[in-house]
Amino acid sequence: MDEPLLLTPGPLTTSMSVKQAMLRDWGSRDVDFIELTRGICDDLLRMAGVDPKENKYACVPVQGSGTFAIEAAINTLVPPGGKLLVLINGAYGRRIVQICEYQGTAHDILEWEEDQPLSPQQLGAKLAGDPSITHVAAIHCETTSGILNPIAEIAETVKHHGRIFILDAMSSFGAIEIDAQALALAAIVASANKCIEGVPGVGFAIIETGKLEMAQGNSSSLSLDLHAQWIAFKKNGQWRFTPPTHVLAALAQAIEEHKAEGGVIGRGQRYTNNCDLLIAGMKKLGFVPLLDSELQAPIIVTFKTPGDPKFNFDDFYNALRRRGFAIYPGKLTRADSFRIGCIGRIDGDDITRAVNAVKETLNELGIENPGPG
Amino acid sequence: MDEPLLLTPGPLTTSMSVKQAMLRDWGSRDVDFIELTRGICDDLLRMAGVDPKENKYACVPVQGSGTFAIEAAINTLVPPGGKLLVLINGAYGRRIVQICEYQGTAHDILEWEEDQPLSPQQLGAKLAGDPSITHVAAIHCETTSGILNPIAEIAETVKHHGRIFILDAMSSFGAIEIDAQALALAAIVASANKCIEGVPGVGFAIIETGKLEMAQGNSSSLSLDLHAQWIAFKKNGQWRFTPPTHVLAALAQAIEEHKAEGGVIGRGQRYTNNCDLLIAGMKKLGFVPLLDSELQAPIIVTFKTPGDPKFNFDDFYNALRRRGFAIYPGKLTRADSFRIGCIGRIDGDDITRAVNAVKETLNELGIENPGPG
Repeated sequence: MDEPLLLTPGPLTTSMSVKQAMLRDWGSRDVDFIELTRGICDDLLRMAGVDPKENKYACVPVQGSGTFAIEAAINTLVPPGGKLLVLINGAYGRRIVQICEYQGTAHDILEWEEDQPLSPQQLGAKLAGDPSITHVAAIHCETTSGILNPIAEIAETVKHHGRIFILDAMSSFGAIEIDAQALALAAIVASANKCIEGVPGVGFAIIETGKLEMAQGNSSSLSLDLHAQWIAFKKNGQWRFTPPTHVLAALAQAIEEHKAEGGVIGRGQRYTNNCDLLIAGMKKLGFVPLLDSELQAPIIVTFKTPGDPKFNFDDFYNALRRRGFAIYPGKLTRADSFRIGCIGRIDGDDITRAVNAVKETLNELGIENPGPG
Repeated sequence: MDEPLLLTPGPLTTSMSVKQAMLRDWGSRDVDFIELTRGICDDLLRMAGVDPKENKYACVPVQGSGTFAIEAAINTLVPPGGKLLVLINGAYGRRIVQICEYQGTAHDILEWEEDQPLSPQQLGAKLAGDPSITHVAAIHCETTSGILNPIAEIAETVKHHGRIFILDAMSSFGAIEIDAQALALAAIVASANKCIEGVPGVGFAIIETGKLEMAQGNSSSLSLDLHAQWIAFKKNGQWRFTPPTHVLAALAQAIEEHKAEGGVIGRGQRYTNNCDLLIAGMKKLGFVPLLDSELQAPIIVTFKTPGDPKFNFDDFYNALRRRGFAIYPGKLTRADSFRIGCIGRIDGDDITRAVNAVKETLNELGIENPGPG
C-alpha cells in the first residue's frame, strides 16, 4: 500500500478534490487571491457562530502548523504585564507552557492527570486566589489522550472571574460546536488540517476585535504578529508575507466540502459514528480504551498497550501499515498506549476495514488477548 | 485568462508535475516522509556546494514564507549578547531591521541607495570601527530593485574581520552559485518557492554545524527555534510540529526538476536568457530599466514608470492580466516603478509573448513613448 489511510491526529487523509484544488498557481497580490483569503476568513468566522459583518471577531490566518498559530495568539494577545494561566491535562497544555518559557511570558499552571478533565471548580479557586492572572489558556480536545474538556464550564468560570480566555481548539474546531460569543472567548485557535480537512501549512485565530485593537506592540515576533497581519488585511486584504497559496486554495475547497456535509453538525456526526464503530470494534477484539466513554471526544482514541509480551508497537504499526492504515503512537507520560484517529476523509466502512486489519494483525502476531494484562 | 503566468518575485508559476506531487497525503511520522525530508535537506546542502556526509553544514527547514525562515535564523543564531549589522539597499534589508526591533536584538545598519550595490569597502570601515558587531546580514539579490549584491567581496570582508555572516539568498539560491564554505557563510537562508520552483509554504536555512551547536537557548520562539529543530532531526528525522507535507512533496519534485535542468548552472542560464530577452524587448518598446546592466540580477527587472500621464499602473496591470500575465508593482521608496520577474517555470517564448502583450497594452492605452519622461 503506497498511500495508507491516515488514522492519526494529523496530517490527515483529505479528499482528492481538496488536493486537486492545489493544481493551480495563484498570484498572492492578485484580486482573485485576495477574494479567496477573505472568503476563507468569513467562513471560518461563521463556523465559530460569528457573523463576519458584525466585526465583533476577526479571523487572522497564520502560516505554519497549529503550534505557530498558538504561539502567535499568545505572543500577540498576552501583553508584557500580563500573566497566563495554562490548564494542562496533556502534551498540548505543556506546549503552551513551553511557548511562554521561550517568550518570557509570565505564567502559572493548573495540572490534572491525563485521563481526567479540566475542573472548573479548581480553576475558579485558582482565579479567586490570584488576581495577577490576566489570561487563561486551555485545550478543547487534548489529543494526548483524546479527552474532551468541559469548555463551556471552563469558559463560564473564566468569564465569571473577568479574565481573558484563549481556547486551543486545534483538533475540535469544525466538528464540535464552539460559539465564540456565547462562551465569551477572546480567541479560538485552530488549523486547516484537522476537522476542516484541508492540508497542513496554515492555521488561524478567531479573535475578538476589541482584544486585537489592544494588542498593538505586544508581539516579539514580526512573522507571528497577528495584530499587524489583521491591520494589513483591513488595509488591502493582503498577506504581509508570501502566503502558502496552494494550501489556502485547498482550505477554501475543504470549507465548501464541510458546508456540503452539513457544517459542524454533519461533520461531527460522521466522526462520532467513526469513533463509536472504532471503540466497539476494538473492544470486541479485547482492546481497552483509556478513557471513560463520557470523556471521549470523537477525534482520536487512546487504547492501552496489550500486556502480551508478543505485542510490540513497531511490529503492530508496520503490520497495519502494510494493510493500508497508518495509526499513531501514544503520547501519555504515565502509561504505554497507542492511538487511532477518527477524523479526516474517512467513514464507517474505512473504520470497519481498519478494525478488521487490526484483527488480522493480532492473528499474524499471535496475540490472543490484547487487553492491558 | 483564468490562470495568468506569474512574472513576479513569488509566488511563481510552477510546473504541473510539481503541483501534481501534492495529490497524495503523507503521514508526517511515517518512514517514507522522514526519508522525503532527509532527501530534500541533503539536496539543498549539495546546492550550496556542501557534501551532506561531511556534517560541516546542516539544512534546517522551517515552515512559512521566507520571512519566517530569516526571522528564525536571526533569532536562533544571534545570541542575547550579540549585535547584528544589517546591510541595506532595499526593503528586505529593512525587514531584517524590523525583525531585530521586534525581537529586541541589538543591531546597527549600513545603508545605500536602492540602485547602488553594497560596498565592501564601507563595510570594512564599519567593522574596523565597531568591534561590538558580532554578526552581519545581507541580501544577495534585493528584489526591491532586482540588484545583485557583490556577495563574494562582502563575505570576504566579513571573514577578514572575523565576524559571522548570515546571507539572505531568498531569491537567488538555486539560480546563482553560492558556495557556503568558500564564502565562509554561517548561514544561507532561502525558500522553496523562488529559483527552486517549488510551491510557497516552506523555507530553509543552511547553517554551519559549529554555529548551530552554539545556538542552544538563543531563540525566543518555540516555533522558530532552528537549534531545537536541528536536534529533533538528528534524533529521529522528524519535524517537531506537523509539517506542510504536500508543500514538501512538491519541493522534492521541484528539486528533481532542478537537477534535470542542470542544477544551479542550468537554471541560471534559463533565467539569464529570460532576463536578457525581457530587457531587450522592453527597451525596444521604449521602457527604461532602473539598473545598469552589470548590477542586474537575472531574477526580476525594475522598469521606471512611463512619464506619459495616460500611464496608470492599475490599468497597465489589468490589461496585461487579461492577456495572461501577472506583473508586480514597484517597491522603490524614491521613484515610481514596476517590476517584471524572470523566474519560475517560464522560458524565452513566454517572455517574448509577455513583451508582445506589453506592446499591445501600450497601443490599447494610447501610450506612444513609455520612457520615464
